Amino acid sequence: MSILVLGTVALDTVKTPCGLRKDILGGSAVHFSMSARLFSGVSLVAVVGEDFPKQHLGFLRRKGLDISAITQSAGKTFKWSGEYQGDLNSAITHHTELGVLLNFQPAISNAHKKSKYLFLANIDPVIQRQVIRSMQSPRLIALDSMNFWINNKRQELVKTLKLTNIYVANDQEARQLSQENNLFKAAKALTRLGPKMILIKKGEHGVLFYSDKYIFVLPAYPVERVVDPTGAGDTFAGGFMGYLAKAKKTDSQTIKKALAYGTICASINVEDFGTGCTDGLKSVDLDKRMRRFSKIAGLNLDIRK
Amino acid sequence: MSILVLGTVALDTVKTPCGLRKDILGGSAVHFSMSARLFSGVSLVAVVGEDFPKQHLGFLRRKGLDISAITQSAGKTFKWSGEYQGDLNSAITHHTELGVLLNFQPAISNAHKKSKYLFLANIDPVIQRQVIRSMQSPRLIALDSMNFWINNKRQELVKTLKLTNIYVANDQEARQLSQENNLFKAAKALTRLGPKMILIKKGEHGVLFYSDKYIFVLPAYPVERVVDPTGAGDTFAGGFMGYLAKAKKTDSQTIKKALAYGTICASINVEDFGTGCTDGLKSVDLDKRMRRFSKIAGLNLDIRK
Repeated sequence: MSILVLGTVALDTVKTPCGLRKDILGGSAVHFSMSARLFSGVSLVAVVGEDFPKQHLGFLRRKGLDISAITQSAGKTFKWSGEYQGDLNSAITHHTELGVLLNFQPAISNAHKKSKYLFLANIDPVIQRQVIRSMQSPRLIALDSMNFWINNKRQELVKTLKLTNIYVANDQEARQLSQENNLFKAAKALTRLGPKMILIKKGEHGVLFYSDKYIFVLPAYPVERVVDPTGAGDTFAGGFMGYLAKAKKTDSQTIKKALAYGTICASINVEDFGTGCTDGLKSVDLDKRMRRFSKIAGLNLDIRK
Repeated sequence: MSILVLGTVALDTVKTPCGLRKDILGGSAVHFSMSARLFSGVSLVAVVGEDFPKQHLGFLRRKGLDISAITQSAGKTFKWSGEYQGDLNSAITHHTELGVLLNFQPAISNAHKKSKYLFLANIDPVIQRQVIRSMQSPRLIALDSMNFWINNKRQELVKTLKLTNIYVANDQEARQLSQENNLFKAAKALTRLGPKMILIKKGEHGVLFYSDKYIFVLPAYPVERVVDPTGAGDTFAGGFMGYLAKAKKTDSQTIKKALAYGTICASINVEDFGTGCTDGLKSVDLDKRMRRFSKIAGLNLDIRK
């Protein structure tokens, strides 16, 4: 089952204790797609500027992604530059240049409107809502956001969340939007905003999944050398949503396995800059790491050998 | 199989967002014993002052603990007062009064020298070593410590660690002693100090267990209302060591189950002040929570129904 993902395609400049990379391919839609593609067809809805290097589009196409809904507009591509220090848990943003994102109006083709799985990566909640409304009969809609929208467009975000099934947030965002400090209470409060399923990403501390029917807690896969955490959350969401789209169900066992795949994908993403590690990634690599994760986290997942 | 635990028996004054309790029963040996007793016989080696309330000793005895090696000395009982704010993750110590701990010289009876399982809770590493040396043929020795000893008696601590099998630390202590920021690397480095097994407690973020043969990561049990986290780490260690002493082995499946029992015990400890929640605790309560934990953490533990 194919996934439509709305989000950013960006040029990132990243500094970490392991080095500096300038203007590398990044953005929420890219990181999401790089893991989701291992489970499902993926179509990206995004905008880039005139300056966007052609080879990046070629790269995405070669990865099997549908880039027909990536539009190129007059202006500059969205750029982010930031730095990670010490424990690499949070980024210090040096600079954000919205460029063509400022006037982005996604046009969804008739074919894309038929998509059953929709992932709304971090972007203006008004645009997220427009895309939801253009869909014909979506089966599952997941939404990610960030503190900027919680602070500056809270009402729009809340309005959009009502139309979704899964809210994906990091721990800080979940606390901020729910105004609850305890994550378990936060998750419960967030279901009252609309989405019946809440996925709270805690970075190196794993993930908490909450629904009225069941909750799950999973630790992160222990990574010995974190090179660049940029996009880990979106890569997680890609693995999670990708597996759900492949499985075509959301029962508890499927959700648990989707969470484990998200965990694995994120752990691979952080081992190199940008898409360095997800570039050559194959299903067999995922399954290998899944078996190891299953073992060290003591999970009763039914993984193919 | 009985466990000998060396540590503190204290009077704690604790302030948390849920209230204030003055001079309640606390200390590392007490919290350890309150969970270990559910799996194994436990003998406490500790000292209290003349001011120590008799009813506390009666309480410990009624819990089935062997208190014959708790000596009463001239002077005051060890007192700690502290406060937890906001996310309750770390204590602000207001006051520490060592009292009788200052001249504590544990005398181990011949019967206690025969114990096979020894837990050295946080106390001066020189005293910890004395107790190790007085044992006849211990099967498993675990040691906990804290940042005070890492800073002030590092060489003594390192000398003592060489004689142990399991080092139990929180994430901050593990980083401090190993001088490695990444916890996985830290654990690996710590095995080079002697203990073949490293247990790193990450509070609300769960636990990492490392040995050359296998590693485990487990999330914490999600607690909706944390009342008082004092002693959670020792209660964890009690559940962990208690289960090992009961199982009389340290293969990977036993370690995993011991970690899960430690997790459950700690989650129960934090739901009330002091020993409020571990007081009435029964094996059947543990097993009930274990089944729920198994479910929400997706664990393949073989728990009795």
